[in-house]
Amino acid sequence: MAKEPKLALIPLGGLGEIGKNMMAVRFGENILVIDCGLMFPEEEMLGIDVVIPDITYLLENKDAVRGIVLTHGHEDHIGALPYVLKQLNVPIYGTRLTLGLLQGKLKEQGVAGEANLQVVKPRDTVTIGPFKVEFIRVSHSIPDAVAVAIHTPVGVIVHTGDFKIDQTPVDGEVTDFYRFAQLGERGVLVLLSDSTNVERPGYTMSERMVGTTFDETFRQAKERIIVATFASNVHRLQQAITTAHRYDRKVAVIGRSMINVINIAHELGYLHIPEGTLVELEEANRLPKNKVVFLCTGSQGEPMSALTRMALGDHRQVEILPGDTIIVSATPIPGNEKLVARIIDQLFKQGAHVIYEAVSGIHVSGHPSQEELKLMINLVKPRFFVPVHGEYRMLIKHADLARSMGIPAENIFVAENGQVLEFTRRSGRIAGRVTAGRVLVDGLGVGDVGNIVLRDRRQLSQDGILIVVVTINRELGQVMAGPDIVSRGFVYVRESEQLMEEARQRVKEALEKCNDRGLSEWAAIKAQVRDVLGKFLYEKTRRRPMILPIIMEV
Amino acid sequence: MAKEPKLALIPLGGLGEIGKNMMAVRFGENILVIDCGLMFPEEEMLGIDVVIPDITYLLENKDAVRGIVLTHGHEDHIGALPYVLKQLNVPIYGTRLTLGLLQGKLKEQGVAGEANLQVVKPRDTVTIGPFKVEFIRVSHSIPDAVAVAIHTPVGVIVHTGDFKIDQTPVDGEVTDFYRFAQLGERGVLVLLSDSTNVERPGYTMSERMVGTTFDETFRQAKERIIVATFASNVHRLQQAITTAHRYDRKVAVIGRSMINVINIAHELGYLHIPEGTLVELEEANRLPKNKVVFLCTGSQGEPMSALTRMALGDHRQVEILPGDTIIVSATPIPGNEKLVARIIDQLFKQGAHVIYEAVSGIHVSGHPSQEELKLMINLVKPRFFVPVHGEYRMLIKHADLARSMGIPAENIFVAENGQVLEFTRRSGRIAGRVTAGRVLVDGLGVGDVGNIVLRDRRQLSQDGILIVVVTINRELGQVMAGPDIVSRGFVYVRESEQLMEEARQRVKEALEKCNDRGLSEWAAIKAQVRDVLGKFLYEKTRRRPMILPIIMEV
Repeated sequence: MAKEPKLALIPLGGLGEIGKNMMAVRFGENILVIDCGLMFPEEEMLGIDVVIPDITYLLENKDAVRGIVLTHGHEDHIGALPYVLKQLNVPIYGTRLTLGLLQGKLKEQGVAGEANLQVVKPRDTVTIGPFKVEFIRVSHSIPDAVAVAIHTPVGVIVHTGDFKIDQTPVDGEVTDFYRFAQLGERGVLVLLSDSTNVERPGYTMSERMVGTTFDETFRQAKERIIVATFASNVHRLQQAITTAHRYDRKVAVIGRSMINVINIAHELGYLHIPEGTLVELEEANRLPKNKVVFLCTGSQGEPMSALTRMALGDHRQVEILPGDTIIVSATPIPGNEKLVARIIDQLFKQGAHVIYEAVSGIHVSGHPSQEELKLMINLVKPRFFVPVHGEYRMLIKHADLARSMGIPAENIFVAENGQVLEFTRRSGRIAGRVTAGRVLVDGLGVGDVGNIVLRDRRQLSQDGILIVVVTINRELGQVMAGPDIVSRGFVYVRESEQLMEEARQRVKEALEKCNDRGLSEWAAIKAQVRDVLGKFLYEKTRRRPMILPIIMEV
Repeated sequence: MAKEPKLALIPLGGLGEIGKNMMAVRFGENILVIDCGLMFPEEEMLGIDVVIPDITYLLENKDAVRGIVLTHGHEDHIGALPYVLKQLNVPIYGTRLTLGLLQGKLKEQGVAGEANLQVVKPRDTVTIGPFKVEFIRVSHSIPDAVAVAIHTPVGVIVHTGDFKIDQTPVDGEVTDFYRFAQLGERGVLVLLSDSTNVERPGYTMSERMVGTTFDETFRQAKERIIVATFASNVHRLQQAITTAHRYDRKVAVIGRSMINVINIAHELGYLHIPEGTLVELEEANRLPKNKVVFLCTGSQGEPMSALTRMALGDHRQVEILPGDTIIVSATPIPGNEKLVARIIDQLFKQGAHVIYEAVSGIHVSGHPSQEELKLMINLVKPRFFVPVHGEYRMLIKHADLARSMGIPAENIFVAENGQVLEFTRRSGRIAGRVTAGRVLVDGLGVGDVGNIVLRDRRQLSQDGILIVVVTINRELGQVMAGPDIVSRGFVYVRESEQLMEEARQRVKEALEKCNDRGLSEWAAIKAQVRDVLGKFLYEKTRRRPMILPIIMEV
């Protein structure tokens, strides 16, 4: 009897976290990858710029990797490609806008020339090794988003990507219910579905609701209007532009990333800008106050963004004026709550009228709430279910939801990054583990900042550092210069001269004791200095700065 | 004609922020202070433990300060007293529980002996200098909370403290509507009211709702129950204990601060514990799983708290077991969202069933929503209105709400800490500014960490530090030892030996150039080293570590 064919799904990112989405699909010696995203650093990853998936597993199986398919153009789905492509140059499949946005990022990082980009459209099917990959239209907070159905010899895998069920999408491109339903009717082996909003009951509101709020706000505003939102939310930008045009206002765009997106989306036909509506910032500044809308970045309170600079009175070209109406059209991403609140406070202090999420329906999510998740399960009717794109509790809640829909508990897998989910036509199991994890990017360094460096940064950030330098002559058994103590981030030195002098005395005494043994054992001297000084400082200040003894020998 | 008497209200904390509440009321040479709270540090205040108000103004007018009245026992209303009392020992007035909790804190800090504590009860009136201060019962997330009405020669000031309108409070002590209404009927000059929840429409739910949820959850739980909540929420603790007793479970308390509060509240009669319900942790661990409830701290994901240790498998006495029901009975305080989410994920990973705020009504706020704020204004009918206890946007929203209730815009003051609000019987204005601000407490140091230290900590936390040490002999004009480079928090040294060696060479070359001028100008040498090394490292790594040149002379 022939061995039953097996298919493996191997999450390399995005499970147990929101970010760096990446899923490998393996059949024999063929691997197809879905998405390749980055993640923004956690608070404790001090100094880190971005986090990307560890692709050791793919590099170890380099010859098997047939391609990467992208579901949409958000950073957490395409943002790791500029790094990954340098190590793994395979064909990349995506819709036009997705690849347009990717192309921009690759250019910025100087790797655009190397990429093999293959444009697809919804309902296209492409053959990649033994896989037939079909792209299925979904709604999301960026246009041209797709789910993928992967037809494999073992069965059909449906990966929703990020989606919502928007019955009235801004671009009129409704989710392809028919294809999901048809696949469901014919039989789907595994459904992988977006868990981001599983904690929310009901339905996510349509993007069009924001258009209604824009309309009301624009109608009432007597002076300038400033709209801050995500640079990539083309639907939202479209609604702001359309509403501005309706009320006979010109639009100026502020913020490099938003200008980039608008250029690309406009060029590719995803953004419809009435002739003459878009103006340069200088021109906008000369127009009457009731004739202008500024569209800008910074809805997450990002320190260098346009809105933040304006709020702090630090923007070279735009100053917030009393009478301005400012719409912060976004929800703070978890972790950004305080940043955003501070910016809103600053805007109020400058006299602006600020409309923000806590008090009004000025933003809707791009992810599905519980009823939409149920609809997806009922359309696709999968044999096996794997919640993806969520922190651990969300995956658990999504698994609970799937069980409540009648999928047997043993057919639902709450997996972790790196776990291998192995399926035959009738069975599924967790079959081992491959290398997976996070790679930290700091400046030009990819992976050169690890736990030790982060631990040091943490200690430095809490209580600073004291450096103790002493020059000795080992032959003479004598201290030639020092000990000198220099501190940074510990205490304000001018007010603590006495403390520092006392500390120096303690070190001196410690060195004298060591000197009885001839100053020859550096490690012992250093340990002694650390010990004496650490105890002294803790007793005096209840702080534990890093203590770094340096011995110079002449 | 005699000069019209004037009254000043001077916020020293709590305006434009949630925390360190403190309000001075001045009439001639008499100052009364309402509350004296602390604040937890903002994210960018690296290494800081707590933040307290700057009381320079009170110290400059030390002889005028007649006393401090406390509205309730939360940290943000009493937490700065252990520090402030050392500089300003005046009588302190508060209800029994408030002073009981304060006494505990003063003991911990070794200043209990110095305090002059005066117990008051609701409807008491005490005379403090020219002020008649009346205490009025309100509901809040801690028992024995009061508002204060201060009868002054200029008029009556009503300060709500923190409150909610709970129609069914757990302890049966309903807000004293009559006194508020009577004051309103007779004429109130100024109302200062809690702005925390002004962004929320409707009414805040009654604390009793949580009791209903506890009841349902306890009834269904088959094994152990763990309830995490704020240590000071005595009503919540009461409901957990009562429900435990109803379902024949014993209660063990974990976490020092919660044990303290329970002891004090029990001793003073604010917590009713059925005989034999409370057991030691060791005993609880020996009981059958369906006979025990653990009450613990850590509902904010605090790193050292009981729940966090349990979640990380790091608690010496309690291990999370599959089958445990864990109730996280709190909302994350802004800034703590990610910490709390991570703890919940960890608990799920250990197999527990976790009930938390995003998915269930397991917590209610202690602050008033819009309809309650309106009720307070309609009861008190003040001539002037000052929103307090809120970030700036909340004060603005609260001012908007008061205006919508018919208070004229010119009678509403959105003030900042340090501004002097001056009132006569008929007029109010902002009349200058006194010193106000924040004092950072780090370990034993109060105010010795300032902006320079914080700036250094920030730089250290982002890219670490490189220390360049060189020993020179100025007379010989010669480098005797070094340059040596030591780094911390910059790169993982073992993988960057080449980079560090190259950096050393650059410094060496720079020193040789300086040597042409005889190595005599230390400042110039240091500047040169910083410059050369900074440029080199930025080019190679795109990072900007702190560079600290140290020159030793022999």
